[in-house]
Amino acid sequence: MKSFNGDGEQVHNNEGSHRGSPEESAFEMKTEYVSLSLLPGSNDVVVKTLYVSIDPYQINRMKSFSSSQKAIGFAARISPGEGVGRVVASEHPNFEKGDLVGGLLSWGEYSIVKGAHMINKLNPWSSHCPTMLEFWVNISVSCLLLTAFSGLTAYGGFFEVCKPRKGEKVFVSAAAGSVGNLVTLFKQKLGFDEAFNYKEEQDLKATLKRYFPDGIDIYFDNVGAEMQEAAVANMNTFGRVAVCGVMSEYTDSNKRAAPNMVDVVYKRITIRGFLAADYMNVHADFISSTADHLHNGRIHVLEDISVGLDSIPAAFVGLFRGDNIGKKIVKVTCE
Amino acid sequence: MKSFNGDGEQVHNNEGSHRGSPEESAFEMKTEYVSLSLLPGSNDVVVKTLYVSIDPYQINRMKSFSSSQKAIGFAARISPGEGVGRVVASEHPNFEKGDLVGGLLSWGEYSIVKGAHMINKLNPWSSHCPTMLEFWVNISVSCLLLTAFSGLTAYGGFFEVCKPRKGEKVFVSAAAGSVGNLVTLFKQKLGFDEAFNYKEEQDLKATLKRYFPDGIDIYFDNVGAEMQEAAVANMNTFGRVAVCGVMSEYTDSNKRAAPNMVDVVYKRITIRGFLAADYMNVHADFISSTADHLHNGRIHVLEDISVGLDSIPAAFVGLFRGDNIGKKIVKVTCE
Repeated sequence: MKSFNGDGEQVHNNEGSHRGSPEESAFEMKTEYVSLSLLPGSNDVVVKTLYVSIDPYQINRMKSFSSSQKAIGFAARISPGEGVGRVVASEHPNFEKGDLVGGLLSWGEYSIVKGAHMINKLNPWSSHCPTMLEFWVNISVSCLLLTAFSGLTAYGGFFEVCKPRKGEKVFVSAAAGSVGNLVTLFKQKLGFDEAFNYKEEQDLKATLKRYFPDGIDIYFDNVGAEMQEAAVANMNTFGRVAVCGVMSEYTDSNKRAAPNMVDVVYKRITIRGFLAADYMNVHADFISSTADHLHNGRIHVLEDISVGLDSIPAAFVGLFRGDNIGKKIVKVTCE
Repeated sequence: MKSFNGDGEQVHNNEGSHRGSPEESAFEMKTEYVSLSLLPGSNDVVVKTLYVSIDPYQINRMKSFSSSQKAIGFAARISPGEGVGRVVASEHPNFEKGDLVGGLLSWGEYSIVKGAHMINKLNPWSSHCPTMLEFWVNISVSCLLLTAFSGLTAYGGFFEVCKPRKGEKVFVSAAAGSVGNLVTLFKQKLGFDEAFNYKEEQDLKATLKRYFPDGIDIYFDNVGAEMQEAAVANMNTFGRVAVCGVMSEYTDSNKRAAPNMVDVVYKRITIRGFLAADYMNVHADFISSTADHLHNGRIHVLEDISVGLDSIPAAFVGLFRGDNIGKKIVKVTCE
């Protein structure tokens, strides 16, 4: 089978920090044989990949970290990411050949999932190659499992970390990968009150002041750096910053958010990092309310799909250039 | 009477930020007459100052702020600070001549307190010029009111913001104004497990790693800047930074803490600013438990007292040089 490795050749300097966006040349396609003969009783499963989710945070799994979590360079392997696949061989009692599964899969044609760890069975699915959107809306609620981490991050972060109250003003950065010129789309299709392209703004602090004349109560931060500083400057008292991701800092560990701590004290601002894994307790609520919102059209889904395993490096690298419009997904195989 | 004004002549640059520590020359002593004849029914009170508390945060009240709370220079007046005084004239039904009061008083010999706003009556006190420590421990629990803000900041910040759990490791910066060479004092008299003088350390991150080999769970931040960055780098998962003050940023608004947000996300760190005023709900608990701890010797109090109104500028400016050892107080008058 074919699969991708990061090759560890990214630029890094002597001070132990890494700079610069990832490049396609850092990926290497490898071909190896996969045996469908599993050791009886091993609980292992072989999964053929249908879709993989491409997310910016995956760059952190490609880095080696020192004990203080400072990025010191790329490791020579890619950790599994979220994906959907079909079981082609199983020695695990809960899975059999033909099952549709969602969970952590390799960026390759097949994954050997030891002990069937971190995969879940999805409901039977007969259509040929629907989009992930069709998956979600038309097929089965359990397919929402495949969005467990991205979706739960948004849900847990917003409801559990931000604890929104009626009437509060919410700002979300990097709301759909690249916003670009899609302000109209944001406002008309996705229901945002306002949207702007940060690349067209000279002074983010002034921009946020213009869009939030009454101040920001909640900032769902996917970016870090100057955007976080500008949001804190425009924040109301008791404002909350939920730090979900730090896009601008993933590729340059010297680029840092330096929010004004005098503001943080006097406006009693909370800046809080979180991971979806901490909110598994609201996972069931997330699934049921999101399914409901999807069926009723209160949530719209934007997907940006590339086709073929070969397209993974460009899809991943493109995240850091803001190429994608919506959730980036690679359709690896049609069945 | 004599009183102090800041004269607004501090250095500031064209970008609207203020740099540099305050200087004694920025203060001006003024003399004016105070009438003891108050308007009948005005509810006003005239208070003769005995003690005033000298605190770093007062520099922020001397600055003008833009709408985004960025410091843009010093204003030409000093806001009242915490103090203890004796009522010399009263038109307020709750106060009469001779009452001992604690609350917001001017940095002057007398304060005309309109509507008796922000002062409270303390229990009768007959000794001549005890120290504030004697006040606290020997005289009256209600005298603790005079430490309402500094003390409640520590109490509310630690118990309500940090929510400590048994066994957690706590780091406090600027724990007693200047630590200097007083590490021995800290460890033997004040009960700290360890203490260090940051001025003797080259690499704060390595220093904290040495003193907290198992990581920091709670950082009570009085400093901001590099110290906050070093603490976040050494923090355990679910660590909490209670931002109480930002000493290093008060005098240089371009000096900022830039904690690693990748750490903040992956270690799910909370950085939270707070003001004592938000914790008035635990004020009664603070008074009773602190009085108890003082009486039982579980809390030791370190005071650094200067004598005379003239000593206020040097006392205040000294805070930013780390001159004081313990809580800085000026005894304005002996009765």
